Amino acid sequence: MSSALTLTERHTDATQRLILSSAMDLLEHSGVPDLTVRAVAKQAGMSERTVFRYYASRDAFLDAVAAEVVRHIGTPPAPARIGDLPGYVRPLYTRFEEKSALVQSALHTELLRRVRESVAVDRWRAVRDLIDAHAPHRAERDRSIAAANIRYYLAASTWHYYRFHFAFPLDEAIACAETAVRLALEEIGRE
Amino acid sequence: MSSALTLTERHTDATQRLILSSAMDLLEHSGVPDLTVRAVAKQAGMSERTVFRYYASRDAFLDAVAAEVVRHIGTPPAPARIGDLPGYVRPLYTRFEEKSALVQSALHTELLRRVRESVAVDRWRAVRDLIDAHAPHRAERDRSIAAANIRYYLAASTWHYYRFHFAFPLDEAIACAETAVRLALEEIGRE
Repeated sequence: MSSALTLTERHTDATQRLILSSAMDLLEHSGVPDLTVRAVAKQAGMSERTVFRYYASRDAFLDAVAAEVVRHIGTPPAPARIGDLPGYVRPLYTRFEEKSALVQSALHTELLRRVRESVAVDRWRAVRDLIDAHAPHRAERDRSIAAANIRYYLAASTWHYYRFHFAFPLDEAIACAETAVRLALEEIGRE
Repeated sequence: MSSALTLTERHTDATQRLILSSAMDLLEHSGVPDLTVRAVAKQAGMSERTVFRYYASRDAFLDAVAAEVVRHIGTPPAPARIGDLPGYVRPLYTRFEEKSALVQSALHTELLRRVRESVAVDRWRAVRDLIDAHAPHRAERDRSIAAANIRYYLAASTWHYYRFHFAFPLDEAIACAETAVRLALEEIGRE
């Protein structure tokens, strides 16, 4: 945007940081059903026009917010070895728990699709690659099922379901997910 | 409500049926984010006041709508024998599919909690009873994990996730759920 180019790099960065941190504040503390540019601008103490100086459209704005949500949640990287998948549940769910308000906001707003398309897709691809390398002797369909069922237990949606619909304590939610992941791995490893 | 008592039983029934069928129309065809008495009254061609003659409050109204949603979705009864649990996935998911718009409305509105508290709780209790009878030799915690992981795959949320987030065809979603249920049953049946 041409008007943004007249600002110094330093000022641009500071304003963008303020916009994104204001969005995080809203998502973490207000449980907003829809994240509007208006609400973020108000939270940041600036005009909507200023926000749109940095983001050409509402879509571009939401993309930036989703990327910031991913960075803030900061889930641990998917394991590189298949045997580490069940043990990955605990640090993952612990992180969801630490960032509970933000994760729930991401799950319940239009940010969900955007967040899924970034970090979740990477995690899912990593799981599928591990399964394919681990069980080349099994049919494609069986590997697809195992990978999907493992991915499902590594999703924030699943953490949320066990914690809030089943109302399980975190340790029990983790035990459920570890069990499901372990069973899927045992099954796909069979001859 | 005293004013309702002045109506004949026949008229009461017809009006209530109209209110509830108008609510179903809205949920099935309009993808409403929130089901309001105003929108239902408009759809039914009556005043909000008339709706409130039958339902003392918005809560009572939503309870009635949730009961009607459950009746319309009409999921098959949970199986009476543990060996029938994996095979229960297909008729259940097929029914979710047939009533897809209504199920998705139920999942994404404030009806969710109400629907879960009726039909879902019954289904869940049935699963837990089957597991307890099947594996009395296993620790309570292990039975709780197995029952939860099976319940999770019998939830409309899971059907929805596999169909719309994984974008799996129905048959593949069913295969995933059947596999997960079968593995949980095998595990809990071990000595």
